[in-house]
Amino acid sequence: MTTAGPGRPRLTTRRRPGATAQAEILDAAAELFTTKGFSSTSTRQIAEMVGMRQASLYHHFATKDDILAALLDKTVSAPMDLATRLLERGEPAAVRLYALILFDAGQLMSGRWNLGALYLLPELRTDRFTQFRGERQLLRERYATLAAAVLRQLDADGTERAGLPFRIVETVISVRSDVEGGEAPCPGLGSPTLLADAGLRVLGWTDVESLRAAAGAVLAECADGD
Amino acid sequence: MTTAGPGRPRLTTRRRPGATAQAEILDAAAELFTTKGFSSTSTRQIAEMVGMRQASLYHHFATKDDILAALLDKTVSAPMDLATRLLERGEPAAVRLYALILFDAGQLMSGRWNLGALYLLPELRTDRFTQFRGERQLLRERYATLAAAVLRQLDADGTERAGLPFRIVETVISVRSDVEGGEAPCPGLGSPTLLADAGLRVLGWTDVESLRAAAGAVLAECADGD
Repeated sequence: MTTAGPGRPRLTTRRRPGATAQAEILDAAAELFTTKGFSSTSTRQIAEMVGMRQASLYHHFATKDDILAALLDKTVSAPMDLATRLLERGEPAAVRLYALILFDAGQLMSGRWNLGALYLLPELRTDRFTQFRGERQLLRERYATLAAAVLRQLDADGTERAGLPFRIVETVISVRSDVEGGEAPCPGLGSPTLLADAGLRVLGWTDVESLRAAAGAVLAECADGD
Repeated sequence: MTTAGPGRPRLTTRRRPGATAQAEILDAAAELFTTKGFSSTSTRQIAEMVGMRQASLYHHFATKDDILAALLDKTVSAPMDLATRLLERGEPAAVRLYALILFDAGQLMSGRWNLGALYLLPELRTDRFTQFRGERQLLRERYATLAAAVLRQLDADGTERAGLPFRIVETVISVRSDVEGGEAPCPGLGSPTLLADAGLRVLGWTDVESLRAAAGAVLAECADGD
């Protein structure tokens, strides 16, 4: 039985993946939000799916919006940490951008539920999600900073293009959505390498193969620093 | 007063853009579905927004799903017609793919509401939308056919890459969604040319400028044939 976190003892044994009751709630909510829809899901249904009283769920999350915010934050916080580190490093911008795409596409592909599909919810335009929208915009800007440095190195004009690599990473979301259900692992999803190649090619970088080993090494070093 | 189509006379004068009552219903539904959400919208709300009795709305569309299906079909039918014509033409595949992206990105950018955001609705996985999903998959395959021909011409391996141009066009949807409200015209949306360049560059085609004039000419000819 999961004992972490506040609240009463659980009604039953563990039903969902996750080391804590909170993680189980998030997994159940992610399934319901991505397969039934956010507004069609109630906190009662989430609690039932975990095998928990609704009152116990409220010890962990006060509202359904809070659950959504926690799920969304998870999709942005890890690539954001990596992007912050990468901006401080000395490798060529193309290598660092390649590494960021590899990592971010990888996490969007491998998460059990297609959480990125929730980015398009009209509910995200409300004040409750101002902070999340700000975080995601900051991540977008870090992608654009690296992409602009690549364009400068190539002596290419067209700063508009600097926005493309971030969008190419997010194509994972529509590909997953088109696969029945979208639960990972998805067949035909492509690979992070495919998208990293594409993210550099749209900037005009043709020799993408030359970046792979260096980008892999940078990722390994950043992971060691954790 | 709009008089086209069946049903009783309208309660009021025209409130929404559209030449027919049906077009007004679709415009109102598109606004509500993209700004409030599909499952949070009722047919009563749509009828009210048009200034029509709910019973009159049912003369045009029997269910809310039928309204959604009509909206979705609109986003796929025109690029599908064009893709079918392009596959029969003799220009180089790169020119034809460039033309298809220009057109399709243009219509996704200029439609008043960001209808592509509805592609990610969980409701679309139900049997009701089998036909729409099939149409969209066929469009995806036509993109891939043209892209594969470009890759062959470049002697490039990696058939996986053939799926990328379709996905790059659909990035319009997340860009619009990130702009407050997403109602066209959107600032910072980029241009169809930016995406057509990107769609060819990911395949390894570097001299994208050389395709623009020829692609424009092909589009003009296809439009003349209407």
